[in-house]
Amino acid sequence: MTWPVADGVLELGDLEVERGGVIRDARLAWQSHGTLNAARDNLVLYPCSFSARHQDLSWLIGPDGVLDPTRWFVVIPDMFSNGLSSSASQLDAYPDVVTPADNVRAQYRLVTEHFGVEVLAAAYGFSMGAQQAYHWAALHPDQVERAVVVCGSARTARHNLVMLSGLLRTLEAAPEHLGRGRFSAEPAAALRAFSHLYAGWALSQDFYREELDRSALGHRDLEAFLHTDWETAFAHQRAADLHAQMVTWSAADISGGGDLAASLRGIRARVLLMPSQTDLYFRVADNAAELPHLRSAELRPIPSVWGHRAGNPRANPADQAFLRNNVREWLEG
Amino acid sequence: MTWPVADGVLELGDLEVERGGVIRDARLAWQSHGTLNAARDNLVLYPCSFSARHQDLSWLIGPDGVLDPTRWFVVIPDMFSNGLSSSASQLDAYPDVVTPADNVRAQYRLVTEHFGVEVLAAAYGFSMGAQQAYHWAALHPDQVERAVVVCGSARTARHNLVMLSGLLRTLEAAPEHLGRGRFSAEPAAALRAFSHLYAGWALSQDFYREELDRSALGHRDLEAFLHTDWETAFAHQRAADLHAQMVTWSAADISGGGDLAASLRGIRARVLLMPSQTDLYFRVADNAAELPHLRSAELRPIPSVWGHRAGNPRANPADQAFLRNNVREWLEG
Repeated sequence: MTWPVADGVLELGDLEVERGGVIRDARLAWQSHGTLNAARDNLVLYPCSFSARHQDLSWLIGPDGVLDPTRWFVVIPDMFSNGLSSSASQLDAYPDVVTPADNVRAQYRLVTEHFGVEVLAAAYGFSMGAQQAYHWAALHPDQVERAVVVCGSARTARHNLVMLSGLLRTLEAAPEHLGRGRFSAEPAAALRAFSHLYAGWALSQDFYREELDRSALGHRDLEAFLHTDWETAFAHQRAADLHAQMVTWSAADISGGGDLAASLRGIRARVLLMPSQTDLYFRVADNAAELPHLRSAELRPIPSVWGHRAGNPRANPADQAFLRNNVREWLEG
Repeated sequence: MTWPVADGVLELGDLEVERGGVIRDARLAWQSHGTLNAARDNLVLYPCSFSARHQDLSWLIGPDGVLDPTRWFVVIPDMFSNGLSSSASQLDAYPDVVTPADNVRAQYRLVTEHFGVEVLAAAYGFSMGAQQAYHWAALHPDQVERAVVVCGSARTARHNLVMLSGLLRTLEAAPEHLGRGRFSAEPAAALRAFSHLYAGWALSQDFYREELDRSALGHRDLEAFLHTDWETAFAHQRAADLHAQMVTWSAADISGGGDLAASLRGIRARVLLMPSQTDLYFRVADNAAELPHLRSAELRPIPSVWGHRAGNPRANPADQAFLRNNVREWLEG
């Protein structure tokens, strides 16, 4: 079965960002799946996770998938610095900090001006995409009916900031680093280190103890897994873009440095919180702390040993079924 | 109150190591607290954890401390490459791999030849020190009465190997790296990255959520904590020594790559397993998997949010009391 797929780039002009600076001739790439209905009330916005482009995220869209394109008009906006929308790696000048809120401001123009939609049926996201979905619900409380937050949080947790600081400093330690997240060339050795570090964070201790890298993913041993699934993946990334995206991640906070509880109370969307039970950086406890401040929300942890990856379960049928069933139910509610 | 403290260096001559290579004119530094009794049956061996020297570990020795030097003759042997015993940073040639078992072989000579002791009252250790204590119990089953394993394991877990691979690759990515863990100069930027990465692993997510870096440790904010407690500490370390110690850590396996359960069954010591409930790399589950194979053992997790640091609770009175009470009871049993 097929469904309409379209893509495009919205030209935003010079985009001022909240912490200072401008993205010149800013471009917001996007892909859509399905058809906007006549009432214009079936748009599900699906922002990107770290290092992902829309084509990396579309696997869960399908009539039997997590997001049904015969029911919903699913729009994936590419995050700034993911290589498709305006990115640090492509520009002579790029702001020191682009926040999730800056991404949401650009996406808001895509939704309202380009698609002519006033209210999102849902904002759905995984990881940094979940943080953008959360920002949508907080910044536009009357324009988001539902938010599905998969392995994400309203504000990047302090431990997560420490993890990100380690990863940022690893890229900055490269001899190719020119300062402020700019690189003279791709830092191959630093990217290799980065990829191994990320493999330690993105999957749980239990995943490795159960040797799912072998039994579920088919790798010969840890070395093969680290090489094939991690080094190769990050070797194709631009360090400047990874750096810029991690700065965005570090800046995630729906309250903009203010009163988080008050910002959570201001959300009117029905919020489904789906952390992974074994995620090492987007913790169940962080969502549990948000829950009492939300008007209408449920916390449904994914019972999985796949760590953060449970929220993007392309190779993992059990978590995929759990995600699909819960999300589909939530979107119809 | 004071007690006898002595230190020395045992000259081992040229020491062949099990994976190949020689430490020329090997030196084993040590410090002792207390007095060996006439029966020579009160020696508690207390090997070193990663990046620690004996003076970093002696804080828990005291009449009211975890290890009572009026009752026990506590000997701290310095690990190879901790800067006091023979170390990669000091030698033109150093083996690619020095294992925990190599350390134990050197320590065995200190215990039997230098101190004339045939049976340890206990091997006590934290982290890599706990791994060495475990190796003692496995390699010399008739010569270790008790083993206290604090935040350590019989074999480095696969997830821990991934974490270590990330940290090793981070040091190796430095422009100062010459290959095989040797450096032309100290890699300041890589060590800074390393320190931030380590801060993410050594304390738990809950520690940071509860802001214990502020309330318990008195830092103004995360940046101050990372700078003062982490960057400064690792800035004084030699990268070659950190690298060599992490290679040792990666090689920890009481079965030497063989049948772990059989090696655990061979242990005759009474083993107290004390992981921290929130340790991110020495997991309760790893000790729990060892437990059924041990003849005489108990698993008593430290109820703490201090992550790995719960096992070295210098700044943490509650965990210190828990450790002291359990260890003192175990040593008298």
